[in-house]
Amino acid sequence: MPGAPHPFDAALRLTAIGDAGDGRFAGHTSLAYANMIGPFGGITAAALLNAVLLHPARLGDPLALTLNYAGPVADGAFEIAARTARTNRSTQHWTVALTQGGETAATATAITATRRTTWSATDIACPDVPPADDVPPAAGMKRVAWTGNYDLRFVDGAFPELSGDEHRSSASRLWVRDLPPRPLDFAALTALCDIFFPRIYLRRRRFTPAGTVSMTVYFHADRALLAAQGSEPVLAAARAQHFGSGYFDQSAEVWSRDRVLLATSHQIVYYKD
Amino acid sequence: MPGAPHPFDAALRLTAIGDAGDGRFAGHTSLAYANMIGPFGGITAAALLNAVLLHPARLGDPLALTLNYAGPVADGAFEIAARTARTNRSTQHWTVALTQGGETAATATAITATRRTTWSATDIACPDVPPADDVPPAAGMKRVAWTGNYDLRFVDGAFPELSGDEHRSSASRLWVRDLPPRPLDFAALTALCDIFFPRIYLRRRRFTPAGTVSMTVYFHADRALLAAQGSEPVLAAARAQHFGSGYFDQSAEVWSRDRVLLATSHQIVYYKD
Repeated sequence: MPGAPHPFDAALRLTAIGDAGDGRFAGHTSLAYANMIGPFGGITAAALLNAVLLHPARLGDPLALTLNYAGPVADGAFEIAARTARTNRSTQHWTVALTQGGETAATATAITATRRTTWSATDIACPDVPPADDVPPAAGMKRVAWTGNYDLRFVDGAFPELSGDEHRSSASRLWVRDLPPRPLDFAALTALCDIFFPRIYLRRRRFTPAGTVSMTVYFHADRALLAAQGSEPVLAAARAQHFGSGYFDQSAEVWSRDRVLLATSHQIVYYKD
Repeated sequence: MPGAPHPFDAALRLTAIGDAGDGRFAGHTSLAYANMIGPFGGITAAALLNAVLLHPARLGDPLALTLNYAGPVADGAFEIAARTARTNRSTQHWTVALTQGGETAATATAITATRRTTWSATDIACPDVPPADDVPPAAGMKRVAWTGNYDLRFVDGAFPELSGDEHRSSASRLWVRDLPPRPLDFAALTALCDIFFPRIYLRRRRFTPAGTVSMTVYFHADRALLAAQGSEPVLAAARAQHFGSGYFDQSAEVWSRDRVLLATSHQIVYYKD
């Protein structure tokens, strides 16, 4: 008899509405992935990607995803509609939306692609950090349920005391994996790209209402690389680029245990002064 | 009597189809912005943004744009449809598509926002380069019409000889402005984010079919900053992050003459081995 599903899989569960080829799915938010208000943005991004992954017409694996957080997602049921905008020989373009009661709460575009082996090179350096086993796990943040589903091991840039002077750096580097451990796949990698608390907390050392407005993920990993990673921790790094007029942007990378680049990700985040 | 419009404005010209509030516009490709095949990606991105800018229901100015190049754009007429997915108090979410003969050639999501003055900081360093006047203009590339509409002054990472050994760096830094000079606006800034030839040319020093699949722009500039820039050159910098399995990603920044960050941008690019 199979055990209960992993909380991540339970949170991502979608049921086709009508014909599967219509690309309409019913889902439900998960309290296990609740943020301070509404769900963790990473789980929402993973849910929209999952609608593409479940679509019977899908070609290839995720190459790029842009997720726009258009409005609050209320606890409860939602619907996701994924449709192909265009299918080419080796790429497929998707538009996706999450609605609740007919109102759009998130929009996305995704590109799936068949990949083939080519010349390869990584021009950015993997952070030089100790292995995950040598870094102690962070204590969970009680007010934020979703952090309980991750083993977070900060090398630097841990959640700061929200008091004191401005800090020079907006960077964090951490080892992270799902709790309980779960083999890495495209949906989990997507969620991990949003694992970073708002950079403004690190930089200003004060509580500031903040929330991601748009996130983009570029998938460098293929299935073989994800399979090789298994359920080991990945190395995640993020830093802000510019804060101004109520928004900052952030760039991030996720590396495998063996220091192979799995994904790069960028986001723009609202903050209040 | 007014003179002929700037070629950029001519290329961006859109005519409302039916009621302006429907968000449907007719446009036409411009040979002045032709690339080797089809139009320069930057002009296509600017055209889709322009449909949002012309929409009578628009709230605020551009904050984020993701442009997906779904298929070739043929020389000739096209239609762009922009619709609001959601309007909030200070942000508005848009979905946009460019079609030709009913087939989708590009999709986009855009976010417009009203900005307000807040605490501000730039965490990345502006490249330390000589002023534009001290850098000689590059010769135009004859096979690529659109480059004739830009004054390109490479500090480093100019278009390389496509022969010889692999090169270590995929980075370019250049001063650039429209030709003839034209005051910077959101559409022109969008096009400038795609000014960089494929990084794989720099890295491998051989001709490789390549094309942008998806580009994201985060707008840090507001109208006042754009107005202060006028038609002076901007400083643009880009570099690749990872090449593999037929795609590489690139990150870029555009800085004002006064070294203020105007936009950050990222893209994922197809290449053939």
